[in-house]
Amino acid sequence: MPAGAAPYVAVIGASQATPRDLADAEAVGRLLGEAGAVLVCGGRGGVMAAASRGAAQAGGTVVGMLPGDGRDDANEWVTVAIPTGLGELRNGLIIRSADAVVAVGGAYGTLSEIALALQAGRTVQGLHTWEIAGVDAVGSPQAAVAAALAAARRRTAEQG
Amino acid sequence: MPAGAAPYVAVIGASQATPRDLADAEAVGRLLGEAGAVLVCGGRGGVMAAASRGAAQAGGTVVGMLPGDGRDDANEWVTVAIPTGLGELRNGLIIRSADAVVAVGGAYGTLSEIALALQAGRTVQGLHTWEIAGVDAVGSPQAAVAAALAAARRRTAEQG
Amino acid sequence: MPAGAAPYVAVIGASQATPRDLADAEAVGRLLGEAGAVLVCGGRGGVMAAASRGAAQAGGTVVGMLPGDGRDDANEWVTVAIPTGLGELRNGLIIRSADAVVAVGGAYGTLSEIALALQAGRTVQGLHTWEIAGVDAVGSPQAAVAAALAAARRRTAEQG
Amino acid sequence: MPAGAAPYVAVIGASQATPRDLADAEAVGRLLGEAGAVLVCGGRGGVMAAASRGAAQAGGTVVGMLPGDGRDDANEWVTVAIPTGLGELRNGLIIRSADAVVAVGGAYGTLSEIALALQAGRTVQGLHTWEIAGVDAVGSPQAAVAAALAAARRRTAEQG
Repeated sequence: MPAGAAPYVAVIGASQATPRDLADAEAVGRLLGEAGAVLVCGGRGGVMAAASRGAAQAGGTVVGMLPGDGRDDANEWVTVAIPTGLGELRNGLIIRSADAVVAVGGAYGTLSEIALALQAGRTVQGLHTWEIAGVDAVGSPQAAVAAALAAARRRTAEQG
Repeated sequence: MPAGAAPYVAVIGASQATPRDLADAEAVGRLLGEAGAVLVCGGRGGVMAAASRGAAQAGGTVVGMLPGDGRDDANEWVTVAIPTGLGELRNGLIIRSADAVVAVGGAYGTLSEIALALQAGRTVQGLHTWEIAGVDAVGSPQAAVAAALAAARRRTAEQG
Repeated sequence: MPAGAAPYVAVIGASQATPRDLADAEAVGRLLGEAGAVLVCGGRGGVMAAASRGAAQAGGTVVGMLPGDGRDDANEWVTVAIPTGLGELRNGLIIRSADAVVAVGGAYGTLSEIALALQAGRTVQGLHTWEIAGVDAVGSPQAAVAAALAAARRRTAEQG
Repeated sequence: MPAGAAPYVAVIGASQATPRDLADAEAVGRLLGEAGAVLVCGGRGGVMAAASRGAAQAGGTVVGMLPGDGRDDANEWVTVAIPTGLGELRNGLIIRSADAVVAVGGAYGTLSEIALALQAGRTVQGLHTWEIAGVDAVGSPQAAVAAALAAARRRTAEQG
């Protein structure tokens, strides 16, 4: 499938996460993988690893944009690892690569990504995350993925 | 004065700002300039221009980290313009360069900077800005600058 | 296959290229795809498109690190497009992502990538490219890919 | 002086340098400082430190774009230190900030900067540096600075 045909959806969240957030993230990943979307994330642990596992086990592509210089920091379900060496500036690259964003829980790094996403006009679906004007709080991974895929398709259609 | 001797303080805020925010930003800039601090900002208009004007008129150094490729986007009070060409990823460079941060008003870009600052362990003094856990809401430009300079000196001492 | 298991090889070269360079690039891409390597490139035309086509037609993964903000700049054989928005600074990300580098022809952008690769300790196999100390001039796409894969495996083993 | 009024000239070269290169770099820095130009460099030792010292002792502004996260890596003559945390990708920021470039000696990092400068349409004056098509080999620091300042003024006039 050419790069332009699949929607790219970022799943953002912290490396320290609650069991509920991890279960949500894995479900989001699985649904994205089943839908043929490319999942973009920070490539590390916690929410990132759970989402990666869900997507990879569903046969999806998982791009891990890593803060450091080495691929070995990636969790084991990342299928394409990008060691940016940019530290937290890689948060901005995750958002740039994504047509839509799903936030699950999250700490300050996630907040920076939410803010950059809203500034860049991306939709953000939130599951138990920061309550920021512009974030669309949803009730389930299914609702998050349905809305994110719809937003990604709209964006792709506008650009295409 | 060598680079290591002066504190670097970021003033962050939006290019669209209220009269109150502009007055606050100019006062913050003036107080930083009078204190011999290097003011780091995004180099554009609104809060950034007001802070730059305050600092420059007090004889201070104003670093403008611009999102685009050209210096001519800088406001006229920037004394050192850095055209990063990084778009909004330059927000992260502003935070990296700063020992402490003062936020005045602000939209999503400012929120991303607040989040990156808190993640990186910088103090954030806030004047009528986002109410995020970790931001120290202060009542005046004087209080903001006093706290920011104290935090910057602590940070410099720890690193020195 | 987990990200850590495949070698990542960058193929660098210009968007304006001679027929010989295009044929070499396509052969390099095909051999990398057949070997199960991840091909990393700048995602645009010329040498980048030829290498991408060779790798994609062999069933390989092709990462296109684009200078602009949109995925639609990617050539049609890129399988994972990363719109970095970094302009030519994305050259450095290509090198960071790669275990080894193959240069085919090339202009100044390619020269910057060769220099960054040699500085970072990556091997550079060269086919009709800049004659810089440290570049290993090889006589065929087969020789380039064999040497690049060997270097990539050495690097992965050292880091693993 | 507003940021737009002074020419910005990058002086590039290695941290390990010969006595001749260090003397050349210091003379280049001094002449730039005397001319009121802003000197942009990598902020570290060797050629960078020599150029910084020359410029600072002539009363000039010296911007040091550092690869790491801390200002304390800057040499003592840097007047504005920017800790980019970008590693060698900061080479590209040095070039973006500069209207013209002077290369003194240099290793692979310098070669990457020369290549990025030529790609971006900047003039490069070279003193005992890489012999790359497009580099203007000059015979003295005086000739290098005269040509760089003339090129910087042409560029500023075209953009102004």
